Amino acid sequence: MKITTIEWKNNAIKIIDQTKLPGKLEYLYIKDIKTLWHAIKVLKVRGAPALGAAAALGVFLALKNSKAVNFHEFKSELDKVISYIGSSRPTARNLFWGLERIRTVVLSNKTKPVSGLKKLIFEEAHKIIREDMISCRNIGRFGAKLVKKGYTILTVCNAGMLATIDYGTALGVIYRSQEEKKKIKVYACETRPLLQGARLTTWELSRKGIDVTLICDNMAATLMQQGKIDMVIAGADRIAANGDAANKIGTYSLAVLSRHHKIPFYIAAPKSTFDLSIKSGKYIPIEERDPGEIKELFFKEAMALPEVKVYNPAFDVTPHSLITAIISDKGIIKAPYQSNIKKILK
Amino acid sequence: MKITTIEWKNNAIKIIDQTKLPGKLEYLYIKDIKTLWHAIKVLKVRGAPALGAAAALGVFLALKNSKAVNFHEFKSELDKVISYIGSSRPTARNLFWGLERIRTVVLSNKTKPVSGLKKLIFEEAHKIIREDMISCRNIGRFGAKLVKKGYTILTVCNAGMLATIDYGTALGVIYRSQEEKKKIKVYACETRPLLQGARLTTWELSRKGIDVTLICDNMAATLMQQGKIDMVIAGADRIAANGDAANKIGTYSLAVLSRHHKIPFYIAAPKSTFDLSIKSGKYIPIEERDPGEIKELFFKEAMALPEVKVYNPAFDVTPHSLITAIISDKGIIKAPYQSNIKKILK
Repeated sequence: MKITTIEWKNNAIKIIDQTKLPGKLEYLYIKDIKTLWHAIKVLKVRGAPALGAAAALGVFLALKNSKAVNFHEFKSELDKVISYIGSSRPTARNLFWGLERIRTVVLSNKTKPVSGLKKLIFEEAHKIIREDMISCRNIGRFGAKLVKKGYTILTVCNAGMLATIDYGTALGVIYRSQEEKKKIKVYACETRPLLQGARLTTWELSRKGIDVTLICDNMAATLMQQGKIDMVIAGADRIAANGDAANKIGTYSLAVLSRHHKIPFYIAAPKSTFDLSIKSGKYIPIEERDPGEIKELFFKEAMALPEVKVYNPAFDVTPHSLITAIISDKGIIKAPYQSNIKKILK
Repeated sequence: MKITTIEWKNNAIKIIDQTKLPGKLEYLYIKDIKTLWHAIKVLKVRGAPALGAAAALGVFLALKNSKAVNFHEFKSELDKVISYIGSSRPTARNLFWGLERIRTVVLSNKTKPVSGLKKLIFEEAHKIIREDMISCRNIGRFGAKLVKKGYTILTVCNAGMLATIDYGTALGVIYRSQEEKKKIKVYACETRPLLQGARLTTWELSRKGIDVTLICDNMAATLMQQGKIDMVIAGADRIAANGDAANKIGTYSLAVLSRHHKIPFYIAAPKSTFDLSIKSGKYIPIEERDPGEIKELFFKEAMALPEVKVYNPAFDVTPHSLITAIISDKGIIKAPYQSNIKKILK
């Protein structure tokens, strides 16, 4: 059965409710923008590329019944909804990139009637979706060239079909390697606190018949010490102009461990994840989330006393110096990153 | 209120049921050896030094009503119970060390009547308990010399009062530093899969008014990157003759991360944790535990599909080359470890 992470269907945004996995494959039909905002906030839909599509479809959802009678009114509604959706989560570049794509289309068509603008927004959102599917396949194709037969690959969080429209970035490389019959094995870091690695990555990899083993995040170093890992591939939420990459918390740790054990460490991400307006990783906004995610074990049982303080950054930044290469949809990018990113993504 | 992790009381081994913390402070009175074996297996009592005491008291519990009429019969029962207790968990040196202390006392008193041997076992177990209390204080005293005013210390798992009789090894250093008014701060790694850092370390540190912040294991690298960690102190379950140290899974990862960030990394452990019969870390037996600990989130809810494989080593080995110093109860041990361990522990 073909599964799509996010699509427009029955006059609504249809998503897989990722908080229900792996127990249940449940779809939600989102019919208003507040529900979408909340779905993004609590990670019912997540993953940088998927958020780009969600944001773009979200603008259409919010404006499809707009009563605006002229461009000025419509533009004012557009600005409001873009700013609202943008307030859901701060780190993933694609969310803002998706919103900007929509804004640009509208601004470039000031003379169109409101009905025409709505149609353009709908089309642009679907262009983003189609492009993402192609991007992921390109990432897979470029990345698989780095994977040798019999490799064991370590990954973190979920940069798979559930983080994109349907193929994945880091996991796209894995899917493509499998299609090329490379007999790969995968170790998935569970990825505390929300366990996207356990809940989502092992779910989608086993569905595709890929040999996957689940570990706790603190076990990755031991596998490396034992010589069991040939390469690490992670996704990214935002990549700065110098190649520094923000990704799910724990990624930086894996990059340092990879360097110590002389294991290649790759970031896989489409062009839409790059933010060339940001000079380096230190300017990437890092979301801090609810302490309850750590303290209360999925809000079900207290794992620490209420008075205990918690630090819960959702992302970290891996400096480009620890990245062996970035697998983009336009090709493999190596150091020097600053110039090669510009050259390859132009 | 004075809390003791383990003691002999009301003709039973009285322990804190550590699986109930931090929700409930509940005591168990263990009256038979199978219950003790199970309590050790499921970590109701855990921590290398506490296991040494539990094992020694366990031998007394098993043999106090022995009907043996001569040394030979008693010795045969002793061997059986020692081997039984020793089968509970393989890694912690102190468990076997406690059992060997008891065996040695019995073997050195072959001419004593069975009643006298029972008494000697009881006394030896209490000697182990008293010695552990002194050891922890010595570790605290030596270790606190390494702690400067205002330091922020990162620790993993629980090497505190709950892992010993009442003061701790790694946390003993922290308690002593606090007594010396050094205004320290602590970050506690939650320590997946069983969350001893979240459930036990933050519990006992907050009880003592120490400023503690809980993080997920994969966040430690980020704190180091931000320059927030001045030193790392971990306990140990077994230390080989060359200084390689087995400790809770995740410790090795912290050691590598510390080296990368030029942060001193210390192991705190009493003499009883050293196993000079083992040449290096690669000969330390590493316990692998039930996949359910990772897959089922405390056996309450599936976090991965049943068919997903899991790798769940309970410990890892940190090579001595990554250890800045070992804080023992006999003094600080630095490289070259092989010779200095011999010299200081003699």
